[in-house]
Amino acid sequence: MARAKNFNAGPAALPLEALERAQRELLDYAQSGMSIMEHSHRGKEYEAVHDEAIRLLRELAGIPDAYDVLFLQGGASQQFATLPMSFLPAGKSADYVLTGVWGEKAVEEAKGLGQVRLAANTGKEAPAAGGGSTRSYTRVPKQSELELDPAAAYVHLTTNETIGGAQFHYVPEVKAPLVADMSSDFLWKPFDVSKYAFCYAGAQKNLGPSGLVVVIARKDFLETGRKDIPKIFQYRTHAKNNSLYNTPPTFGIYLARNVLLWIKETGGLAAMERRNRQKADALYGVLDKHAGFYVAPVERASRSTMNVVWTIGRPELEEVLLGEAKKAGMVGLKGHRSVGGFRASIYNAVSPEWVAVLTDFLDAFAKKHA
Amino acid sequence: MARAKNFNAGPAALPLEALERAQRELLDYAQSGMSIMEHSHRGKEYEAVHDEAIRLLRELAGIPDAYDVLFLQGGASQQFATLPMSFLPAGKSADYVLTGVWGEKAVEEAKGLGQVRLAANTGKEAPAAGGGSTRSYTRVPKQSELELDPAAAYVHLTTNETIGGAQFHYVPEVKAPLVADMSSDFLWKPFDVSKYAFCYAGAQKNLGPSGLVVVIARKDFLETGRKDIPKIFQYRTHAKNNSLYNTPPTFGIYLARNVLLWIKETGGLAAMERRNRQKADALYGVLDKHAGFYVAPVERASRSTMNVVWTIGRPELEEVLLGEAKKAGMVGLKGHRSVGGFRASIYNAVSPEWVAVLTDFLDAFAKKHA
Repeated sequence: MARAKNFNAGPAALPLEALERAQRELLDYAQSGMSIMEHSHRGKEYEAVHDEAIRLLRELAGIPDAYDVLFLQGGASQQFATLPMSFLPAGKSADYVLTGVWGEKAVEEAKGLGQVRLAANTGKEAPAAGGGSTRSYTRVPKQSELELDPAAAYVHLTTNETIGGAQFHYVPEVKAPLVADMSSDFLWKPFDVSKYAFCYAGAQKNLGPSGLVVVIARKDFLETGRKDIPKIFQYRTHAKNNSLYNTPPTFGIYLARNVLLWIKETGGLAAMERRNRQKADALYGVLDKHAGFYVAPVERASRSTMNVVWTIGRPELEEVLLGEAKKAGMVGLKGHRSVGGFRASIYNAVSPEWVAVLTDFLDAFAKKHA
Repeated sequence: MARAKNFNAGPAALPLEALERAQRELLDYAQSGMSIMEHSHRGKEYEAVHDEAIRLLRELAGIPDAYDVLFLQGGASQQFATLPMSFLPAGKSADYVLTGVWGEKAVEEAKGLGQVRLAANTGKEAPAAGGGSTRSYTRVPKQSELELDPAAAYVHLTTNETIGGAQFHYVPEVKAPLVADMSSDFLWKPFDVSKYAFCYAGAQKNLGPSGLVVVIARKDFLETGRKDIPKIFQYRTHAKNNSLYNTPPTFGIYLARNVLLWIKETGGLAAMERRNRQKADALYGVLDKHAGFYVAPVERASRSTMNVVWTIGRPELEEVLLGEAKKAGMVGLKGHRSVGGFRASIYNAVSPEWVAVLTDFLDAFAKKHA
């Protein structure tokens, strides 16, 4: 079967080279007569992969020595809880900047654990796709709109909202430690880690399969974490043990290593950024060209380069569009069930050629039906 | 390279058929033009795999409808914390039965969260392999030795201790809900789920790759869990959402599905038990035959059928044995760093032929050096 043009939001398309290598080695890793999955996490073969993945990530993202890189489990959803468990002490409050559904989830978990302030909230009440109402987020706040508590334990951002498609294109200036959920914003371009105290990202967008989450955090920030919570939820436990305190998801980390090698061989994060901006420009270009027919709800300055969201003025054409796209080998274009419409996730592994096929398709579809 | 005779304790050998299928399908699952890793966890292809894995587990282990089957992350080590977070309320205490290192870790996390009683502790102070002292566990307690609190929130067992090699060959009778860490005791034989309120098992022994943990628990017990802890750590959250509340480790679950199919095709858990008992009998047989030369420290009635642990009277021969075993294609025989000596983990996927090679090797080695 020809390779699908996969626009899934996550788990998402992975670089073919990373998968091909995994396939070649699946039964026999490095002439060991065993799959990498069958190797002990304490053995030299696996440890070399583990350390290489961390080294490549440090190199590609330019992570300073003052930062730890951790491979954890439970996805970003678990970080929504363990972050305030560690860093939101009694008597303090944390600032959350709300720009979408994932931020709402982060706020919900944090509220159960401590005091939460909203430093900004760009959501507006809107009718939900499935009936009732939901909040609709079509932009991120400007710096001047942030109502920050200088004494906050931390300020939490979702730098790109995968569902709503609003993305920060600047790093807010804040006094408190800056914490970011970068799940769908990770490794698509160079970024300045030193602006953040703590970043985290579920792997299943730009890094690897699901079941792996990466934390990049300043060592001195990690040390401020509470010590009266379970050892497994203290970040220092994993930092001290090079993410080998308990058995890590070894195959996921192996595959992330393969993906990081592909990024490096493709030219690193600067090359990724060029490629990704070109894809996003092409896609928003066709939506803007047919602005009466397609509706891209996110404000221009907040448009996501990773998750392009749009609707169609004539809802009866939604299924027609999805059906024809599928026939043309494109999958994953249906919008999230909470917002409806369409979404094309165009992560690193989504090729410019696939995006060109989608762009031409949307152009032709609009011309035919407009 | 010929397939290694892999006696790793976990991550461990997986059935070749399960890996071969994964290799064949790695780039193109079910003619979708995508890897299973690239499929959305909300798509019909992945959901069919997810549901099949649960259905096969229910069928093979005879899990009653009154029980939920959950696929979670963070391994058994995370369960050590989330279990008391949910089920050890203020003012109550939980009984722990201590028969090895994993039980110690479970107790350590629980103590930070609530009151813990030891209903039994078979550990004795002993010199540690790396210097200093450690506790040595060479048996499980008899029913008559259990000092149970009938009002305990629950009674926690480690039914097989992977490091020390002591295994329960009976299910203790208790009044309180029985909770078991079955990580290295899971799916090697039929077992009566209805004796337990809650069982959990890291996948990386008998079920799949690391990064996946299975929970099998009575629905009414799960409902008693605290509601004032983070949503992600409430078991009811995952039960209500068929383990799809957040993105599950999709590839790990897919591979577990392949392993479960292999178990079914090989004759189910009854066939596994015959095969595993035969392997354990052969291995303990050769250790007993050379009882002066090899020392199997675990008491006969508590010997593990999964993790066979022994030492050698002449420590200078340890490296010789490991080196010769490696030349003969055997890996993973070094004992855990905390106890030293040797350990052969003989999970389902370790073939009787590999065990025969090991048995013959140990016999010849003893004859040569005794």
